[in-house]
Amino acid sequence: MVKEAIQYIRENYRTRKVDADPGFGLGQMSGARFIGKDGRSNAQRVGVPIWERIDIFHSLINMSWTKFLTIVMVGYLVVNFLFACIYWLIGADAMAGIEQVEGFSWFADAYFFSAQTLTTVGYGRISPVGFASSSVAAFESLLGLLGFAVFTGLLYGRFSKPNSKLIYSPSALIAPYREITAFMLQVANPKMNELIEIEAMMIVSMFDKKQNKRIYATVSLERDKILFLSFSWTIVHPIDENSPLVGLTVADMPEADPEFMVIIKAFDETRSQHIFWRTSYKYPEIVWGAKFLPMSLTINEKGQSLYDISKLGSYTEAKLPY
Amino acid sequence: MVKEAIQYIRENYRTRKVDADPGFGLGQMSGARFIGKDGRSNAQRVGVPIWERIDIFHSLINMSWTKFLTIVMVGYLVVNFLFACIYWLIGADAMAGIEQVEGFSWFADAYFFSAQTLTTVGYGRISPVGFASSSVAAFESLLGLLGFAVFTGLLYGRFSKPNSKLIYSPSALIAPYREITAFMLQVANPKMNELIEIEAMMIVSMFDKKQNKRIYATVSLERDKILFLSFSWTIVHPIDENSPLVGLTVADMPEADPEFMVIIKAFDETRSQHIFWRTSYKYPEIVWGAKFLPMSLTINEKGQSLYDISKLGSYTEAKLPY
Amino acid sequence: MVKEAIQYIRENYRTRKVDADPGFGLGQMSGARFIGKDGRSNAQRVGVPIWERIDIFHSLINMSWTKFLTIVMVGYLVVNFLFACIYWLIGADAMAGIEQVEGFSWFADAYFFSAQTLTTVGYGRISPVGFASSSVAAFESLLGLLGFAVFTGLLYGRFSKPNSKLIYSPSALIAPYREITAFMLQVANPKMNELIEIEAMMIVSMFDKKQNKRIYATVSLERDKILFLSFSWTIVHPIDENSPLVGLTVADMPEADPEFMVIIKAFDETRSQHIFWRTSYKYPEIVWGAKFLPMSLTINEKGQSLYDISKLGSYTEAKLPY
Amino acid sequence: MVKEAIQYIRENYRTRKVDADPGFGLGQMSGARFIGKDGRSNAQRVGVPIWERIDIFHSLINMSWTKFLTIVMVGYLVVNFLFACIYWLIGADAMAGIEQVEGFSWFADAYFFSAQTLTTVGYGRISPVGFASSSVAAFESLLGLLGFAVFTGLLYGRFSKPNSKLIYSPSALIAPYREITAFMLQVANPKMNELIEIEAMMIVSMFDKKQNKRIYATVSLERDKILFLSFSWTIVHPIDENSPLVGLTVADMPEADPEFMVIIKAFDETRSQHIFWRTSYKYPEIVWGAKFLPMSLTINEKGQSLYDISKLGSYTEAKLPY
Repeated sequence: MVKEAIQYIRENYRTRKVDADPGFGLGQMSGARFIGKDGRSNAQRVGVPIWERIDIFHSLINMSWTKFLTIVMVGYLVVNFLFACIYWLIGADAMAGIEQVEGFSWFADAYFFSAQTLTTVGYGRISPVGFASSSVAAFESLLGLLGFAVFTGLLYGRFSKPNSKLIYSPSALIAPYREITAFMLQVANPKMNELIEIEAMMIVSMFDKKQNKRIYATVSLERDKILFLSFSWTIVHPIDENSPLVGLTVADMPEADPEFMVIIKAFDETRSQHIFWRTSYKYPEIVWGAKFLPMSLTINEKGQSLYDISKLGSYTEAKLPY
Repeated sequence: MVKEAIQYIRENYRTRKVDADPGFGLGQMSGARFIGKDGRSNAQRVGVPIWERIDIFHSLINMSWTKFLTIVMVGYLVVNFLFACIYWLIGADAMAGIEQVEGFSWFADAYFFSAQTLTTVGYGRISPVGFASSSVAAFESLLGLLGFAVFTGLLYGRFSKPNSKLIYSPSALIAPYREITAFMLQVANPKMNELIEIEAMMIVSMFDKKQNKRIYATVSLERDKILFLSFSWTIVHPIDENSPLVGLTVADMPEADPEFMVIIKAFDETRSQHIFWRTSYKYPEIVWGAKFLPMSLTINEKGQSLYDISKLGSYTEAKLPY
Repeated sequence: MVKEAIQYIRENYRTRKVDADPGFGLGQMSGARFIGKDGRSNAQRVGVPIWERIDIFHSLINMSWTKFLTIVMVGYLVVNFLFACIYWLIGADAMAGIEQVEGFSWFADAYFFSAQTLTTVGYGRISPVGFASSSVAAFESLLGLLGFAVFTGLLYGRFSKPNSKLIYSPSALIAPYREITAFMLQVANPKMNELIEIEAMMIVSMFDKKQNKRIYATVSLERDKILFLSFSWTIVHPIDENSPLVGLTVADMPEADPEFMVIIKAFDETRSQHIFWRTSYKYPEIVWGAKFLPMSLTINEKGQSLYDISKLGSYTEAKLPY
Repeated sequence: MVKEAIQYIRENYRTRKVDADPGFGLGQMSGARFIGKDGRSNAQRVGVPIWERIDIFHSLINMSWTKFLTIVMVGYLVVNFLFACIYWLIGADAMAGIEQVEGFSWFADAYFFSAQTLTTVGYGRISPVGFASSSVAAFESLLGLLGFAVFTGLLYGRFSKPNSKLIYSPSALIAPYREITAFMLQVANPKMNELIEIEAMMIVSMFDKKQNKRIYATVSLERDKILFLSFSWTIVHPIDENSPLVGLTVADMPEADPEFMVIIKAFDETRSQHIFWRTSYKYPEIVWGAKFLPMSLTINEKGQSLYDISKLGSYTEAKLPY
């Protein structure tokens, strides 16, 4: 039956009933996951030089903390080293407060003077005398202010950026739904920050053997927006006559190799900004003939409703209508 | 008649006419207030470890000023203490300007030197000499810059975050409205900042004895958006044939135990960001057979219209049509 | 004919065809302008204590530069004075580098030491000795960092906030429009920054003698959104059968005393944020029987289209269809 | 046939079927490009004084790095010079630590003391003594904090602002599309940052010989929004019976001199803000009778789909249906 379903998309794509081509270009693709479980796209762009592809701000905001702090530390050491060399070249006569003007000791003094200038701590035990070293020091303190503006800004940007990771049900289900079936998954927010106006979108991609390429369709959801995500949200795509999945059976899975891509958008109240998440489900994570267990809340002594997020996605067997 | 109303929601939920399940999961809940008067949800998520639940930025932005400033002070004292210990271990020989190299006095000097380094004030009466103490001081001043970047950023974030508290009418009314009745409440903005494009949404939750669980429905409003909130806004849910409340009487209140959750969204012109408020009304705050008094404005000598916000929610008795 | 028009609004208000009550509460109002030419509302809220009404961030961002800088200067002087008093009380023995320990000279030294600590400049000619003065100085430098975080943040916030002032046509016109008439005004952006996705909304308020109160209606526009505002935009409200103004003549103006409130929203590309403007037109600024002159562009040697903004709102007499 | 097409727009403009006048004012314009390939508008506004036209923040954020850093450097040098003059006027007696009180050497000391104060580095080898110089220094360090707040804020603003440049197909095509033809172009994002919810709008402008002016119309797109831009997006305007281009042939190009203006909007996930791009296509860049080659992806050893962006816009000849 996979052929009929795919035929359906193809026909509808021509007649514009199905909303195909969502930025994927309808190109050839392997059966590999297009969007990883963690939301990263497996798409790579080549053919442009690295300096047109790179986005330094993006990299510095999204790299690991280890990498970021290493860059800050190494940068600090290197810039101090470069200025230390300049002070060393100008000579110890241009510095007041140097005790030993020879060898490593004097270079170390130049180095730490540089650090004291760059951070504007400026103890003054060592201080520049004369035009040359004073000019360099005046420039270095300006550079320190400008450079730390960027790095402390980035640090705060990293610290304040949304770190919410949604929790998804490990499996998506093909569950009975009214008289028909539906594709269902569950999401929850483990974080204590409030998510508001949560929206979901779903795109399904299937392999079309005849055309020897992957095809794509945005599918409709029972609800595509909720006001807030207090506990969990069951996202439901009813497999009705308008669904590209209509007629598909579990036996068609290996051939069609469907990927359900889920995009979720919410407003983070604390940060006053929109956040997006992405994930995907492929065949082995899709359970046919099951339904999610109803959410079980317990009430504590303060009258609060407790929801055990570790039970998200628990399901039980359920007979499909056909 | 509560049964009919609840039956209505249940039926409509199946036929998708009523917009149920707004993120509440349709789970069992006590009769406790779901959203507090101050907008806090009573939902708690358990079953995830604390480090996955915590959102440090959210906590530091939303905690009380007392707590935040205590954290800053204690952190400052502790970090200085730790660095003082390091300088103390390196020894007084590595510091210029120390007068007494023994006992408490030398530790205090190390401590205050640390504070002068961390804040980059760097008087220089005491200053590091030699590789070990200079290196530690160079690192400490870097740490000071990075650390204060986060905390001064948080301080400004806390200072500039929206602090608008909407004022709600103490009671919501079941009032006569055209030929039928309507659920009405009033809101006003006591602050001098301008709120623009105010939107309201309302969710009603009632207890369904038969199913032994709470059910939820988003209800329609006469107006769900106004352009600005100059004086007050009366939010009106007409109890027409599409309302889940149709047919409910005051006698049904204890059994149905309805909670009216109100979500309001506005654009804060000064901060260029959206703000959300939430509140709720439960039975004792809902007055049957009353109407709000018309807003009374007085004109002052400058021609300005004065609105007395303390009169918000004043009402008088009114006969309901049935 | 004013009665018919007002009757129309009143009827439509009841039958919900006209979109009344846009946050004004339908209360009694004087004939004074509700929104000033500069967009300030003449609404004032009373009946709440000042500390619930004030929004410090809003005040500090929107006050004049003179006032803001005065607050910064006076605050700086006062905080330094307070700390100077503390150092003075602790005594000159607790300070190294004091030359004259008596009278004004020592107080001045304490004062400038305080300034050097608060700004973290820390020359160190004067420096704290001993526990008491060192502790105060350590606290003052922390306070300086935190305090300047707020004030330099505010300074940048003020500097970067949108300063676009739209230019409006001095007069609005009742102009011939197809077979009927229309209310028209023009806006332009004199600034070099690009405004995108400009939206306009219009509310008309008229005095209803019978009810002895002002009534309000949001009116429809020929276009309510344009993609960008390169030259000028003529905002047009067609006075068709759905307009509350239908049937009104120039003779009705004094009695109806209409106020046309215009709200404009745009996205400022440079600041990545939405901006709102408001203005209003009252009778003497509304010209009956005129039309705007077509926009005249000149092309310069670089092929650029030059638009003379000083001609915005130029109009000529035009016969109305009735 | 150009006349028919233009007649169509004119008629529809009157009957409001075509969405004309998108902020261009329908004025006379040369055949010059209205929006450059790089998205800059060729519109210039004159007739307002420079101080009402300038937007300092906009200028400082968008100027070249060379210009910005030159302004910072020159500003730093000039401010230090001015303060050096003040210290010089007050005299060397008011400074501790001056060795040579005559000539250039003393002025240089005053100059570098100023730099050390402005940046708050404050070594203290030279330090103010007495009321006059101490007051000026206290004021200068305050000024330094405030001034650097603005410039380091601007620096971070420049560093973090979106730098995405979309890549457009060099040519737009008039391609066969179902039974009719369509205007097509392609866009891709060469940067590694993720663009979400990409929207496109298209405005066509043509010269109307009869009226001797340019006319404008917003045209419909097959899709005007995609969820994300993984590879490339083919933006398609079907030339159906509602298109103002219907009936136009390649022979009409010189006379009609059409300009296709494309506005693209997306949400930049890293920066949590909307970005806008603009470009345009004029006749020589519009190829009649061609179609884009299908996007060719290669799969690398990690299973990633590689898309060669340098092939964007590759096309082959294609016979048009008429």
